[in-house]
Amino acid sequence: MDYQSAFQDAVRRVKAEGRYRVFADLLRRKGDFPVARWRTEDGKVRDVTVWCSNDYLGMGQLPCVVESMKKAIDDVGSGAGGTRNISGTTHYHVELERSLADLHQKDSALLFTSGYIANEATLATLGKILPGLIMFSDELNHASMIEGVKGARCEKRIWRHNDVAHLEELLAAAPKDAPKVIAFESVYSMDGDIGPLEAVCDLADKYGALTYLDEVHAVGLYGLRGAGIAERDGLMDRIDIIEGTLGKAFGVMGGYIAADGAIVDAIRSLAPGFIFTTALPPALAAGARASVEYLKAAHHLREQHQERAASLKTQLLAAGYPVMPSDTHIVPVKVGDPVLCKRISDMLLDEHGIYVQPINYPTVPRGTERLRLTPSPLHTDAMFDQLVEALDDVWERASEQAGVARG
Amino acid sequence: MDYQSAFQDAVRRVKAEGRYRVFADLLRRKGDFPVARWRTEDGKVRDVTVWCSNDYLGMGQLPCVVESMKKAIDDVGSGAGGTRNISGTTHYHVELERSLADLHQKDSALLFTSGYIANEATLATLGKILPGLIMFSDELNHASMIEGVKGARCEKRIWRHNDVAHLEELLAAAPKDAPKVIAFESVYSMDGDIGPLEAVCDLADKYGALTYLDEVHAVGLYGLRGAGIAERDGLMDRIDIIEGTLGKAFGVMGGYIAADGAIVDAIRSLAPGFIFTTALPPALAAGARASVEYLKAAHHLREQHQERAASLKTQLLAAGYPVMPSDTHIVPVKVGDPVLCKRISDMLLDEHGIYVQPINYPTVPRGTERLRLTPSPLHTDAMFDQLVEALDDVWERASEQAGVARG
Repeated sequence: MDYQSAFQDAVRRVKAEGRYRVFADLLRRKGDFPVARWRTEDGKVRDVTVWCSNDYLGMGQLPCVVESMKKAIDDVGSGAGGTRNISGTTHYHVELERSLADLHQKDSALLFTSGYIANEATLATLGKILPGLIMFSDELNHASMIEGVKGARCEKRIWRHNDVAHLEELLAAAPKDAPKVIAFESVYSMDGDIGPLEAVCDLADKYGALTYLDEVHAVGLYGLRGAGIAERDGLMDRIDIIEGTLGKAFGVMGGYIAADGAIVDAIRSLAPGFIFTTALPPALAAGARASVEYLKAAHHLREQHQERAASLKTQLLAAGYPVMPSDTHIVPVKVGDPVLCKRISDMLLDEHGIYVQPINYPTVPRGTERLRLTPSPLHTDAMFDQLVEALDDVWERASEQAGVARG
Repeated sequence: MDYQSAFQDAVRRVKAEGRYRVFADLLRRKGDFPVARWRTEDGKVRDVTVWCSNDYLGMGQLPCVVESMKKAIDDVGSGAGGTRNISGTTHYHVELERSLADLHQKDSALLFTSGYIANEATLATLGKILPGLIMFSDELNHASMIEGVKGARCEKRIWRHNDVAHLEELLAAAPKDAPKVIAFESVYSMDGDIGPLEAVCDLADKYGALTYLDEVHAVGLYGLRGAGIAERDGLMDRIDIIEGTLGKAFGVMGGYIAADGAIVDAIRSLAPGFIFTTALPPALAAGARASVEYLKAAHHLREQHQERAASLKTQLLAAGYPVMPSDTHIVPVKVGDPVLCKRISDMLLDEHGIYVQPINYPTVPRGTERLRLTPSPLHTDAMFDQLVEALDDVWERASEQAGVARG
């Protein structure tokens, strides 16, 4: 068996599809978001403007967040030193879980090391707890939810994206007494559209299903206290399990669920992805809590954020760029080809100091490759103008070159 | 469908088995390891000595580690702000991956958010890359490896723990041309025994298998530069994929693999658990790198660590306690009953300020419940004496009470 070739072939296939990823080597500059230092392959360092961060509000540099982290490091040191059960629970974790439960107005919250593992572990464990479970999963759910649904080893039904009529068809066709979970997202991060929360809750009531909502691209950003779309729409009490992240708008790292006490206690007691892993460092819990609490009272930041996103969409559309329809802060500009997408991105970075990562398959379906812009409250009008000028400069040139390259 | 009852029943079953977990609410005190402040349920705070941390060397409080973290926070802020591909790679990540590749003398290393996800994502992805793969997994492999093997959706053979004759039987019986991966650990964390690395490598050569070795409880602790048991035994070049953690002896958080460049690049390009998750905060990468580099040159700490573990085993055995055979720094004391195990642990904490978490099923097989002690170089002779005195005080009393409680 020639293993070396097998691994090389796997990479070659990725390259042949134009979706080989080269990571940009960056250092943000605290206090100067969204500016970062970019290290080129030959080791030179240049300032660039970041246009694709999921630190949507620039919370990662907020003094109260970074100082909370440093204070916790001075207090207890760097890591947790164990799983939550084996010496890894600190009072920082306890307080953050309370803060998150309060945010979502639930009994309890449970921390995971990432939003990815929160989804995967929770959904998989629901399959263990509820024998005969049928999982109803939106077809565009995030990779971590897909892995969780697989891990649940239960029957599953995939409903067409945001199509509640299709969801109802599937629910109606399922055995009445079977336990059911409807798993979906509030903000779909690559398109920026929003799930039909209320209609799903209505169907859940009608067919006796639990609702599981991924709010990772909404927490901190929507609702009067930043609890997400379910808060904005007055539906928090109708969502059984809300899943969120500390790594995007809250600017730190980690994931969580918030739910009824019995649900959280069962997941806490049975999910391998929660039990068998070192707890988040206390400093991350401290920083995240500072961020969550700050954003509960900082609705002006959410308003600025929405204004910036709306304004950028208007400006790009006026300049003739194919902004994809988006109901949120996410501004996707369709390119439709992986090679071209990467080329535009490379030219923006090399020639204009504008960093926006190409989004190619498998993150989005083939043929819908895009630039995904995430303007923050700290992206200025001048930066908007620079961006449009840069796009004007590279878009056609890149298209011609990509056309030539493809022959 | 009564979901509430289903979740309550799930927790009730855990309780009935005596394995319901109550997390101790702790705050270590930087500079004073292994002392921590323990918050009781009524909110009082008492000093305790931690005897079960996986921060095996107390690196979590080392000045160079904590200062590196704080410096990185001052430099770039709190979180990475994105996946590795979408603005989340910083130069701290790049440097840490180089440092880890150097540690294990491999081409490349790849960071994950945890050791758990490193195992799960890598093993599962091997199943995608190598069609027809057969996975040979030691029966006592960690939960994260078991999840990874399941996720690989390939044929699997479970070999009896550390039994190379059984492994050979299974290898010999498998189709000669099928790709094969042998997955095992160096230090098994709950028993403290060591996998038969050289014999496994010999079998891998004979039967054309790849070797995948989990060194999470060995990195930092064994070998002249702290690369683990494979380094100590001169076998690093015969292990194809070494998996490690930054959350135990290195005192921070995160996981990684180190391997040949083609393997790492394939996993990097194809593993959902790597691709679709926010990168580690730059400060964790900075702290971990400081720790890894420090331990490459701090063999004296490893020697002190081994001395402490050997000395504690001797002292406990002399005092008549059932120390389970262990070849490593892990000192398991067998209790054999979950209720008794928890009771001894509770009494040590309440009455003596000694914190050692009970280890019950599913972390270890039923009937082998234990106290798992992890003495560090900072555990003094006086602490050893206190521990033995405390055990003398509680062991019989707890046994009587547990007997009474069971009727």
